[in-house]
Amino acid sequence: MTSASQALPAVLDKIDADLDASVERLFELLKIQSISTDPAYKDQCRAAAEFVADDLSSIGFDTGVRATGGHPIVVAKAHDGNGKAPRVLFYGHYDVQPVDPIDLWEAPPFAPRIAALPDGRKIIVARGACDDKGQVMTFVEACRAFAAVTGQLPLPITMMIEGEEECGSKHLFGFVEDNAAEFKLDLALVCDTSMWDVKTPAITTSLRGLVYEEVRVTCADRDLHSGLFGGAAQNPLRVLAQILGALHDKNGRVTIPGFYNGVKELPKDIKADLARLKLTPKAFLGEVGLKVPAGEKGRMVIEQIATRPTAEINGLIGGYTGEGAKTVIPGQASAKVSFRLVGAQDPKKIRDGFRKFVRDRLPADAKVEFSNFGLAPAMQLPFDNPALVKARAALAAEWGRKAVTVGEGGSIPIVADFKRVLGMDTLMVGFALDDDRVHSPNEKYDLTSFHKGTRSWARILAALAG
Amino acid sequence: MTSASQALPAVLDKIDADLDASVERLFELLKIQSISTDPAYKDQCRAAAEFVADDLSSIGFDTGVRATGGHPIVVAKAHDGNGKAPRVLFYGHYDVQPVDPIDLWEAPPFAPRIAALPDGRKIIVARGACDDKGQVMTFVEACRAFAAVTGQLPLPITMMIEGEEECGSKHLFGFVEDNAAEFKLDLALVCDTSMWDVKTPAITTSLRGLVYEEVRVTCADRDLHSGLFGGAAQNPLRVLAQILGALHDKNGRVTIPGFYNGVKELPKDIKADLARLKLTPKAFLGEVGLKVPAGEKGRMVIEQIATRPTAEINGLIGGYTGEGAKTVIPGQASAKVSFRLVGAQDPKKIRDGFRKFVRDRLPADAKVEFSNFGLAPAMQLPFDNPALVKARAALAAEWGRKAVTVGEGGSIPIVADFKRVLGMDTLMVGFALDDDRVHSPNEKYDLTSFHKGTRSWARILAALAG
Repeated sequence: MTSASQALPAVLDKIDADLDASVERLFELLKIQSISTDPAYKDQCRAAAEFVADDLSSIGFDTGVRATGGHPIVVAKAHDGNGKAPRVLFYGHYDVQPVDPIDLWEAPPFAPRIAALPDGRKIIVARGACDDKGQVMTFVEACRAFAAVTGQLPLPITMMIEGEEECGSKHLFGFVEDNAAEFKLDLALVCDTSMWDVKTPAITTSLRGLVYEEVRVTCADRDLHSGLFGGAAQNPLRVLAQILGALHDKNGRVTIPGFYNGVKELPKDIKADLARLKLTPKAFLGEVGLKVPAGEKGRMVIEQIATRPTAEINGLIGGYTGEGAKTVIPGQASAKVSFRLVGAQDPKKIRDGFRKFVRDRLPADAKVEFSNFGLAPAMQLPFDNPALVKARAALAAEWGRKAVTVGEGGSIPIVADFKRVLGMDTLMVGFALDDDRVHSPNEKYDLTSFHKGTRSWARILAALAG
Repeated sequence: MTSASQALPAVLDKIDADLDASVERLFELLKIQSISTDPAYKDQCRAAAEFVADDLSSIGFDTGVRATGGHPIVVAKAHDGNGKAPRVLFYGHYDVQPVDPIDLWEAPPFAPRIAALPDGRKIIVARGACDDKGQVMTFVEACRAFAAVTGQLPLPITMMIEGEEECGSKHLFGFVEDNAAEFKLDLALVCDTSMWDVKTPAITTSLRGLVYEEVRVTCADRDLHSGLFGGAAQNPLRVLAQILGALHDKNGRVTIPGFYNGVKELPKDIKADLARLKLTPKAFLGEVGLKVPAGEKGRMVIEQIATRPTAEINGLIGGYTGEGAKTVIPGQASAKVSFRLVGAQDPKKIRDGFRKFVRDRLPADAKVEFSNFGLAPAMQLPFDNPALVKARAALAAEWGRKAVTVGEGGSIPIVADFKRVLGMDTLMVGFALDDDRVHSPNEKYDLTSFHKGTRSWARILAALAG
């Protein structure tokens, strides 16, 4: 038995040699119309699960298609390795988004094909080419190459490939909780994120958390005529404007006391890495018609969007909002306000701090009620996590560039549960690109993402095993 | 020929003696379903106009039912008097509001009847009993009594009774402009306002003006995902909250520079009169669930609602306002903001001042557009107007209490035009009460309002003629 590192060159050669066959296997999976949100495609979802299970069996995994209240979850286990390597849980999903609007597709969405972009890049075009079938298969193909070259996998791997990610993973949370002992391993791996750009790999080391509050302010017990009551009756829109207008100071910092508790400054080297990306406001904001970062002054735009907490008014309504004029003083007005959290910010403390902030500023005759629609902590992979250090080196070796560590503003729902329920950190490495048209017509995945993504996982697995 | 003042006691006796017949005449008018806003009642509107015209002819007026693009306007003229008395234009309307919701009426709305309140007050119940048929008829009955007793009216009177007040007086403005020479007299009289309370007469000496603006703030050219853009993209709801939240200082004063230009302090005696009314915040605000005046600190609630300018947010909308949560940063948000004006505040300057206030606070990446839905100056009858002085004395004589001079927050649209187009001040005296359910089911008019209202007009006409 050779060590994984010793075997790596041969594994990479095998991946190169096997590329056409790898693409063919991906195409077979892409042909299956596994649209999870539409009950009409229930059988296709099962077919995709069985395809994945059979494929993993052929590599040597001990595989099952496990029933849930919805679409099944493929679980595959291989207890290989030298007994010292970390046990990893790879998570991905075989389901895809619906294809509407179908007439914007240049070719049928479930007839995968190779095409070329004007700049010469070869791409795989199909629904799911990237999200997440293409990305999942980079990991599967890396496993296959290892098994083919060395007769086994370099470390113990459990695969969890679900079929409901595109409709909220609603049965996965319970499945993970019910089977916690089975999945409580050393590290989770996810391939559902993006590269920084076409040449620069990225590791997503944080997902911002979320606190989402609705705040309803009631003053009079009915709508009032502003001609009669204007000047004497408290106006809930004025109350909301004054309170929510005070959420940020003139430097863009959130003014809720204690809001930044648990927010750490980035390590210098990570900050320097981010700076070297030279993400200009124009590059990031230009495409939506903006120019000037609106977040905390003195922070790079990449810091603002990925590493700093935020407060946003997501919605506000009150009074007369139709055409023309109506001189009403509304009895009630409401706003939706959300906070993106980072680091160790405590969602409950943020929620309570916001509610106190509102109550402290409430004038006479104004009552307030709150509803909560979200209370999730941030996920943060520690920058000194050994797997992260190894993965960065592995990606640098493959791409010839340092891997960027990025924070994503959005979330992959199950990742928080991996930490909360299973106590496991997650290493998120993905090869999607900004122009992949994920969830849109003509979804694609660069052939280079697929090929070098597979090679990247081989390198990462070898590094983790070593 | 006796003077009007000498004839007054006999005229008042005639009114008392004739009360039952007066009520009968009002009932005949109330039976006519003159709902102006519904085309189905077009003939009924004409019938009401003809009824009024015939009735005025019977008193001795030279009467016409004048066509407009909508419902006709009754014009009636009597060139009586001693040649020295002011020529007055009495304005009222014969149209009424719709009766919906009909099932809340305790009796058919166009079957007028006398009823009694629990406290013993006798009331006339019908749609239009107060607004404005009952109020108009107080003036008409006073004229009738004068004509019956003295053979003529005490001064030259032109009546203008329109049929579209409840749907915006849209043909009246042009009619007044087109016939300005005909209606440009010395003083306008209107009976479409309220008493202070059941025992205290009131003269409405000011109507607040109005500036109504819609402000739309645009940032990104589309709605953005707050997970991705939160912290970097400017949020138009934050912009609106910060700007509109700054419209008032902590003392409730409007912060737009120059906003109070043209706002005068009340004369001491008028202020003392208002103070004597002892309108408590509880009395005014209690019925709508409020307690604490939200206007300028240090002002009586009656000052706040009637004599001081205001700024109110009448509506605000942006982002996601449905059930639950959506993490959107809206591309656009808009608000409706109105200002009630008093004294010599210049509507155009207020509008321009507001727009500058917004633009001065607009951050980078935020654009603003404005629409105007109202630009009317305040109407203010000078406190030393001789007709006002006489009317106050006349009302005090009738009711045994000083008449209060009040400002109304709302407006009677045509009154501004009487000043602007005809250069005429308007004396507004009315006998409505707060519990008259104007525009609502079971509209009523106190029999005392009708009877003593008629007597009040007789006294006012005698005083003006004297």
